[in-house]
Amino acid sequence: MVTVASMGERKVIETIFHKLALPTMPIPFGDDVAGVDIGRGMVAVLKTDMFVGKTDMPPAMNFWQAARKAVVMNVSDFSVKGVKPTALLVSLGLPLNFSKADVEQLAEGLNAGAREYGAYVIGGDTNEASDLIISCSLFGIVKKRFLMLRDGAEAGDIVAVTGVFGRTSAGLKVLLEGLAVSSRIKRFLLEAVLLPKARLKEGLALAATGAVSASIDSSDGLAWSLYELKKASGTGFLIDNLPVAPEVLEFAKLNRVDPQPLALYGGEEYELVVTIKPKLWNKAVAAVKRVGGSLIRIGKVTKDAEVALQVGGRTVPIEPKGWEHFKSKA
Amino acid sequence: MVTVASMGERKVIETIFHKLALPTMPIPFGDDVAGVDIGRGMVAVLKTDMFVGKTDMPPAMNFWQAARKAVVMNVSDFSVKGVKPTALLVSLGLPLNFSKADVEQLAEGLNAGAREYGAYVIGGDTNEASDLIISCSLFGIVKKRFLMLRDGAEAGDIVAVTGVFGRTSAGLKVLLEGLAVSSRIKRFLLEAVLLPKARLKEGLALAATGAVSASIDSSDGLAWSLYELKKASGTGFLIDNLPVAPEVLEFAKLNRVDPQPLALYGGEEYELVVTIKPKLWNKAVAAVKRVGGSLIRIGKVTKDAEVALQVGGRTVPIEPKGWEHFKSKA
Repeated sequence: MVTVASMGERKVIETIFHKLALPTMPIPFGDDVAGVDIGRGMVAVLKTDMFVGKTDMPPAMNFWQAARKAVVMNVSDFSVKGVKPTALLVSLGLPLNFSKADVEQLAEGLNAGAREYGAYVIGGDTNEASDLIISCSLFGIVKKRFLMLRDGAEAGDIVAVTGVFGRTSAGLKVLLEGLAVSSRIKRFLLEAVLLPKARLKEGLALAATGAVSASIDSSDGLAWSLYELKKASGTGFLIDNLPVAPEVLEFAKLNRVDPQPLALYGGEEYELVVTIKPKLWNKAVAAVKRVGGSLIRIGKVTKDAEVALQVGGRTVPIEPKGWEHFKSKA
Repeated sequence: MVTVASMGERKVIETIFHKLALPTMPIPFGDDVAGVDIGRGMVAVLKTDMFVGKTDMPPAMNFWQAARKAVVMNVSDFSVKGVKPTALLVSLGLPLNFSKADVEQLAEGLNAGAREYGAYVIGGDTNEASDLIISCSLFGIVKKRFLMLRDGAEAGDIVAVTGVFGRTSAGLKVLLEGLAVSSRIKRFLLEAVLLPKARLKEGLALAATGAVSASIDSSDGLAWSLYELKKASGTGFLIDNLPVAPEVLEFAKLNRVDPQPLALYGGEEYELVVTIKPKLWNKAVAAVKRVGGSLIRIGKVTKDAEVALQVGGRTVPIEPKGWEHFKSKA
């Protein structure tokens, strides 16, 4: 029997997609967020993403952190489309043995996550469930012309990200597999896992420049993000400057593992992965700098259908893999 | 230890509420839907409600019906506020052993539920979970002055509903407890459980009349709905015409049970429970009739803080009970 375990998340979503009657939409089905035209050039933007205790909550994470992260996951998708989140609704599934203190931690984490990005929790519901389930629904309004979609990358555009990669992967290896780490860098790696941040300021700043031709977040891993952009834009990518976090290089050396896969295939990182029109590169860099962030050039968009990494004069393929529900194991 | 099982759903929600920073909102926290002012007298309306296989899916229900019902639950809350649903996002939690056919059934049920009420499923996500989880998020836009909230009932207003009660309770007793039923009425009782309908046409028609002073749906049972209106409006209710479905009277007679509790305390029924300004009663009745529905007068709003039932010359209190997550057992 074909089960969701053998299909994997992407095939499951494809199966659902084929059963839906879809209206004309300002944002294509399958992009990071969904949208509804509400007239006067404005789009109401909606996003829902579910945090499941069983698969998404490492042992070291407390309920405050879990709830806050559930919000951040959703805010990240708004960030990368250039949309300011306004309101959040939360549908909670709680096991019967959860205590009042657990509920308070969850509520405080939800509120903290929303307020951190200027949004408010304005409603929701609670239910009995076997797992902890935190299903967030985010709402915001954006000028249609500010929306940064996945499908506009063109050969010659610059590929850029808003931060370095690999900390979450390394942090999970410390937490789940007990790999070694110096106390000095442990903090950075665990913080990436337990207190991830969405790049909202950077996303809003980039949207206002008009410099971005395609945009996605790296929540399923940098490699997978590039493949998603490839699918939507019909382009290839040559990455010649893989931005591995310095702590990850140190961690990899200590444990004698290759740092590149940690940076490429990890997931649960929330950097923006964008393509920028070369003529507007300086404007984009300045805009992100102005809000306290940084834009790192990592490569370029190519005509051919390859996603590849150039390292030490050699070009090697980047594999189409990353975090996938039903298939991946945390 | 105080657990969610001992607290019950209402205390859990209260606990969360006390931890939230809330903005000024066009719809009070705790009403059936949440809203965001978007200017020009318009409100963006949002609702999220979760269907959990373990607690919400009787054995006779298939996945198509479960998915459709998950949509109907949310549409009902829009109906009773007078809001037309536009777009639906769905966050699914699926056990690993779900088959491709199960996923197709779910997707078809979601699509059918949305299309039945003029909405579209435009996005969502999928996750691995122990239970089947169908978390729906509904979106629509409404003129603020059309919104029907819970808090406007005044003594002297007429209490009315859009249909008769008790079929779902009786149907669940047939399905879960094996109570007797004639084959003639079995169909009506099971249809109420497996294929519930939201009163969207009726809700939109009522909203346009301006006749409604307070409004709620009966998803937690008629009695509980009256207590919720009492809490929001600060009024009492005297019900003198409890509208029990004829099939329920027959079922009750056959099984020698009291039909009144079936109609009062059931839940999972989706009739509108509204209070109507007496001067506009005829206008309200005509508006609902025009869309093919019916508005049944069941009593009146009173000054005192009682919720009571007048039957055969006696007045007896209606109890503040109904379906409650964490406490109720299906």
